[in-house]
Amino acid sequence: MEKNTQLSVMGGGLVGCLLSLYLAKQGYRVDVYERRPDLRRTDIPAGRSINLALSDRGWRALETIGISEDIKKVAIPMYRRVMHDKSGHLSFQPYGQEGQAIYSVSRGGLNQALLDLAEAQPTISLHFQQQVLEVEVASNKVTMLDNSAGQEYQITPDVIFAADGAFSMVRLSLQKTDRFNYEQSYLDYGYKELSIPAAADGSWQLEKNALHIWPRGQYMMIALPNIDGSFTCTLFFPFEGDPSFQSLKTEAQVHGFFQEIFPDVTALMPELAQEFFENPTGSLVTVKCFPWSNAGKILLLGDAAHAIVPFYGQGMNAGFEDCTVLRGLLEEHQGEWETIFKTFQEVRKPNTDAIADLAVYNFIEMRDKVADPRFLLQKKIESKITAQYPDAWLPLYSMVTFSPDLPYSQALANGQRQEEMMRQLMEYIQTEEDYDRPEVQAFLQENLA
Amino acid sequence: MEKNTQLSVMGGGLVGCLLSLYLAKQGYRVDVYERRPDLRRTDIPAGRSINLALSDRGWRALETIGISEDIKKVAIPMYRRVMHDKSGHLSFQPYGQEGQAIYSVSRGGLNQALLDLAEAQPTISLHFQQQVLEVEVASNKVTMLDNSAGQEYQITPDVIFAADGAFSMVRLSLQKTDRFNYEQSYLDYGYKELSIPAAADGSWQLEKNALHIWPRGQYMMIALPNIDGSFTCTLFFPFEGDPSFQSLKTEAQVHGFFQEIFPDVTALMPELAQEFFENPTGSLVTVKCFPWSNAGKILLLGDAAHAIVPFYGQGMNAGFEDCTVLRGLLEEHQGEWETIFKTFQEVRKPNTDAIADLAVYNFIEMRDKVADPRFLLQKKIESKITAQYPDAWLPLYSMVTFSPDLPYSQALANGQRQEEMMRQLMEYIQTEEDYDRPEVQAFLQENLA
Repeated sequence: MEKNTQLSVMGGGLVGCLLSLYLAKQGYRVDVYERRPDLRRTDIPAGRSINLALSDRGWRALETIGISEDIKKVAIPMYRRVMHDKSGHLSFQPYGQEGQAIYSVSRGGLNQALLDLAEAQPTISLHFQQQVLEVEVASNKVTMLDNSAGQEYQITPDVIFAADGAFSMVRLSLQKTDRFNYEQSYLDYGYKELSIPAAADGSWQLEKNALHIWPRGQYMMIALPNIDGSFTCTLFFPFEGDPSFQSLKTEAQVHGFFQEIFPDVTALMPELAQEFFENPTGSLVTVKCFPWSNAGKILLLGDAAHAIVPFYGQGMNAGFEDCTVLRGLLEEHQGEWETIFKTFQEVRKPNTDAIADLAVYNFIEMRDKVADPRFLLQKKIESKITAQYPDAWLPLYSMVTFSPDLPYSQALANGQRQEEMMRQLMEYIQTEEDYDRPEVQAFLQENLA
Repeated sequence: MEKNTQLSVMGGGLVGCLLSLYLAKQGYRVDVYERRPDLRRTDIPAGRSINLALSDRGWRALETIGISEDIKKVAIPMYRRVMHDKSGHLSFQPYGQEGQAIYSVSRGGLNQALLDLAEAQPTISLHFQQQVLEVEVASNKVTMLDNSAGQEYQITPDVIFAADGAFSMVRLSLQKTDRFNYEQSYLDYGYKELSIPAAADGSWQLEKNALHIWPRGQYMMIALPNIDGSFTCTLFFPFEGDPSFQSLKTEAQVHGFFQEIFPDVTALMPELAQEFFENPTGSLVTVKCFPWSNAGKILLLGDAAHAIVPFYGQGMNAGFEDCTVLRGLLEEHQGEWETIFKTFQEVRKPNTDAIADLAVYNFIEMRDKVADPRFLLQKKIESKITAQYPDAWLPLYSMVTFSPDLPYSQALANGQRQEEMMRQLMEYIQTEEDYDRPEVQAFLQENLA
């Protein structure tokens, strides 16, 4: 039975589309407003990263709408990190146990699939090039701009779901209300996307089923595989200082720098200098705010509520998990929006705060620690502990990435406890073989058995 | 000689007025735009606290424009805290050494005096009821609203000084630019102003030359004297919970609560219930952001750059100190705005961060610790140390309040070091007389001589 409440979802990105499908399934009519043109019919730059790492929390959400098998066909499993040092020597770190992987998927492709599903629902209406300018919070009156006609107009939905991203205009209106806590904080690093094309025969020029990292202490480059044989590289690099985006001013400087710092891959990047100067330099923001809702009439979710930096590969996964949690509450509290929203924000806020902090921390791990043999040795030891005590020990990365529903805040707390244990344990360990030393085994027995 | 640069100061409050005087003194023409009507000609509620605590940093700034003597005539020195317990028993804590005081001044009166001074300058033009709606940061084009005529118009100053307060519209425009770090965080407490009128003979009904505190653990009331014999009380109280602004719903509940919790003063507040329900409940925000400037064309200062909660009595003093520091840089770098602004924000940011954190901390001290005999004993001991080692020891409160120029960040660092010393020293001390014990004296000798 169709319900009468007028629901508007602001944002037709990944989270907005998934949410609209969940709302439609509950019997609501949903209007989805997206600022940009329909990406299925226009060739526009996404303005965002080209590929994303999809992991278990994300897959869980895609399963509920029946497209996980289709997406998996065009996703590339990455079973391990491959670290490239300055002399081109490689080292390896599996992400999880045998067969566990994170998946490189195309942001655009996934968004298209979700838009197709939404469009096929008779109760979902998609409106492209329709931008939120301002929300009058007391009345829920939204001033919209039709970007194709250049016309402003107003709508007054019963409930507004703001999935309009890290720079949410709905959130900006909420920010002006009393007692709205808000924080946007930027790293001193920017990012630049560069590319490694496929080989002449269409094959991948680096190991395909891996996430590649060139850790360089204060900065790094990474590469994720695409299904066309190419890799998308992302250089995470200081805005200012030496070296930095500011200090590399000429093509010769860029080539010289890459040949010195990333020697094994520079020859694979024929468009390097052009891409370096023509592609935009992105910034890296963390957004935290509270409350996420207003009087059962407005709810922020996804990046609009909690934008995070990309270093844990959890931005989309966290947004999809928002939808999963909200879906449960929609079923439990049928149309009692204020209860649904209050419960949602109370349950989710500690978890999105946790993943935000983990994501910032993981930048340090990726750019610096993974080049440290002691760190890699510790990861190997942790893997042995997981095998020996599977019920008592799971590495933090696995708790975050390969659990479909362990709350992020609990993963973080477990991880901190385990890190303290490892700090003590590693004092006994110089090589992988030391794992079998009696004192090591006794320590584990005492703490985990 | 008059300079050609078009300077606009947004905000005709305390900081905006003082800054415009400094700029005029440097030979600039200055336009001051104030959102509200001229407070000298209208009887409007300030929308802000009625009286303020002026201390040495503030006096230093007022001396430079020659009005400190006039203001002192209408300011009331407060030499000590007077704590009122639940049975009406009083205890006392001097703010500093003999003769040192903070001063209760009328916000409106001080603002009027500054407006008079600004108006008397031929190179300062005051524009009232002129509100900033938005700044186009790339061009410095400001969309203004004339609140008397209801007309929008645009101006394009060469340089914009944003002294438009905690909810600065200039800052809101900067917030939308890339890499602008911003945080607004609210306490879970609100405040409500209440009053104790003068006695029939015009005298003060509580000790005049003191700041009164009713510390009650999780909340508190304070009172500052006014020159007309009245006191302005401020109740700092939770928004929600029991008791809270939400839980006191009827006049009888308010009277019952006050008579139980603030028994010695309730009889002095004849308008209590009416004021409680008619006066607004204010919220308490801390604002931090960075950078404060954009390309030598926009500068945030005062509350627009660093709004703080009122518990250290330093909000206005910090804003005035901004002007003092900026004044020095204006003289040193004549018209090199980018240098002036970059230096300003780098020098000031750590200090305003420090006073922001101290202000939040001081709420705990005022509402809870000043009711603790051990805390008061420690303060007495610290006072003795100051007398014995005047060059090596100054209490944190004195460093913040009675120093005209010690950077807040240095005061905070010194204070933390001293607090650790006191933690060790207080283990030897049960009474004031224990100060003379040989081990106490030896400890001080070793650490301070």
